[in-house]
Amino acid sequence: MTTSARALQAPSAKAPLEATTIARRALGEQDVAIDIKFCGICHSDIHQVEGDWGRGLFPMVPGHEIAGIVSAVGSGVTRFVPGDRVGVGCFVDSCGACMYCLDGEEQFCTKGVIATYNAKDYDGEPTYGGYSEHIVVTERFVVKIPDALGLDVAAPLLCAGITMYSPLKRWGAGPGKQVAIVGMGGLGHVGVQLAAALGAEVTVLSQTLSKEEDGRRFGATDYHATSDKATFKALRGRFDLIVNTVSANLPLDAYLGLLKPGGAMVSVGLPVEPDKVHAGSLIGRNRIYAGSNVGGLPETQEMLDFCAQHGVAPAIELIGANEVNAAYPRVTGSDVRYRFVIDTATLAS
Amino acid sequence: MTTSARALQAPSAKAPLEATTIARRALGEQDVAIDIKFCGICHSDIHQVEGDWGRGLFPMVPGHEIAGIVSAVGSGVTRFVPGDRVGVGCFVDSCGACMYCLDGEEQFCTKGVIATYNAKDYDGEPTYGGYSEHIVVTERFVVKIPDALGLDVAAPLLCAGITMYSPLKRWGAGPGKQVAIVGMGGLGHVGVQLAAALGAEVTVLSQTLSKEEDGRRFGATDYHATSDKATFKALRGRFDLIVNTVSANLPLDAYLGLLKPGGAMVSVGLPVEPDKVHAGSLIGRNRIYAGSNVGGLPETQEMLDFCAQHGVAPAIELIGANEVNAAYPRVTGSDVRYRFVIDTATLAS
Repeated sequence: MTTSARALQAPSAKAPLEATTIARRALGEQDVAIDIKFCGICHSDIHQVEGDWGRGLFPMVPGHEIAGIVSAVGSGVTRFVPGDRVGVGCFVDSCGACMYCLDGEEQFCTKGVIATYNAKDYDGEPTYGGYSEHIVVTERFVVKIPDALGLDVAAPLLCAGITMYSPLKRWGAGPGKQVAIVGMGGLGHVGVQLAAALGAEVTVLSQTLSKEEDGRRFGATDYHATSDKATFKALRGRFDLIVNTVSANLPLDAYLGLLKPGGAMVSVGLPVEPDKVHAGSLIGRNRIYAGSNVGGLPETQEMLDFCAQHGVAPAIELIGANEVNAAYPRVTGSDVRYRFVIDTATLAS
Repeated sequence: MTTSARALQAPSAKAPLEATTIARRALGEQDVAIDIKFCGICHSDIHQVEGDWGRGLFPMVPGHEIAGIVSAVGSGVTRFVPGDRVGVGCFVDSCGACMYCLDGEEQFCTKGVIATYNAKDYDGEPTYGGYSEHIVVTERFVVKIPDALGLDVAAPLLCAGITMYSPLKRWGAGPGKQVAIVGMGGLGHVGVQLAAALGAEVTVLSQTLSKEEDGRRFGATDYHATSDKATFKALRGRFDLIVNTVSANLPLDAYLGLLKPGGAMVSVGLPVEPDKVHAGSLIGRNRIYAGSNVGGLPETQEMLDFCAQHGVAPAIELIGANEVNAAYPRVTGSDVRYRFVIDTATLAS
């Protein structure tokens, strides 16, 4: 039997979000039903509501940073019981059989991974995200939230956390490594904490020094303004790894010049326009420019466990459902320290 | 006592090469004197004579693909004796003490590696390259050419060979890997042989199919024309590694689309203008765009030994010193199969 859930939806592209009631599918054998307690607001929610990345499916219920409590499980579910603290991130299904799924890299599923919202499930039904009271998700896409992590701060980790953890791990952030995080926003402030917890020396590269105190509190030992040209001279050849969280076009050649020989700059922010990069910025010193797209389920669980163990937690502003429309322009304008989280209990009223 | 050597020099930028006599330094304790037998013509020789990469030092004696026979050694030389078959590549000195030199990555020497020509040595004297009868080089920058390799075909390996070998090795070309080589010129035709010898499945991506027969003979199992748009559709997501030898600006987003998740495209060709690349082409599938710059001395020796063992050898057109000016436009126009090599014995006349 389907269930109904209060939710926030964008009825059409660029329209303000409004309260609505949606249906969730009946609990299947492999399904976990989750009472959503908190859902983070990701910058990509806004891009999708705005239609920046191509045509969206409307009405759209955004939200892929979901934290809650298991309310029921299907008969075939083995890893969860009602009462468990759990999370759901950017995806809710994949084929489960291709080499990427078998490797725990479900984001590359050859059949096509199913996004948590603004997608169609394999059965053709639209997926609705976490700005909602509850959700039904196949067990494989549910992760455990360790007791040491509050559900409210755990929510943003399901996207922002794994988006930063995955490239930091893959590109070797750790003891003896100089790591720069570009941008001190929702992603960046988690990246600073993760890189520091992994043992790297962390520098923040931000437009201004306005968030320097926070950056150092999060674990950065160095903080530079990218609006100051002297920064690019002073830090030339300094870094083993730069993780770029900025969604605007940056002067990539200047940033690549900050890498050591063999160093890597990894972008996770997605500008609409192409970037310019001179091959010489890469060739001269065997430098690398790469992209990174969240992470698979096993790595997401590893990230949550790591955050619990090392006290990594996003700084959040908790808001009610009626504050989301006002929050969006503050995300776009970098006027949030550092991630909005919706208290989904407020959807009931 | 300095010695004199017949050589070909460019008296000024863009000027034709002319015969001249240059002085080589007196043999120092650590020095090896080499009778040059053959010197390859590298596309970068032309760029430097033309001043494409900034102001050159003139008169300029190009040539960094040097093969010859040791004629004398300094008293401190331990690895060579007169009569040895040896080579010299892109560099003739480095500090020898920094972490990169100690790691055998002399190309990244923090003091600054000394190029074989168009550079100033640490003593301020200009360096002159291999379009010359002989050269004096510090022992550390001399490599052994195995008996199984002809000196004429060994010459181009000193730049073209290591330029391809280094990224193929570093980025994992080997059994079970799908590798594409972009461009079937002086670099590309060596890359095809090396990748095949390393055990990879090799595809050539060339503007047309005009060199397909050669490509398959060199070891490619697949050959596609990049002028045919269907190529980019047919090969979507195919490759673990693409090594791009082309010095023109390519539509990078289309090429990056040919990579598997986590795959790497490595450029060794240096266009004058910046490239355009969309971050989405990298982020969606954890793809990598990187550069690679020749290789250090240990890897250069390893490459020569590998080529000798696996029968890898450039296809060359042997020319006399008086044919070099006519050869340059043929290199620029991709009208050589596949590398010009100067018989330096012809410098005497």
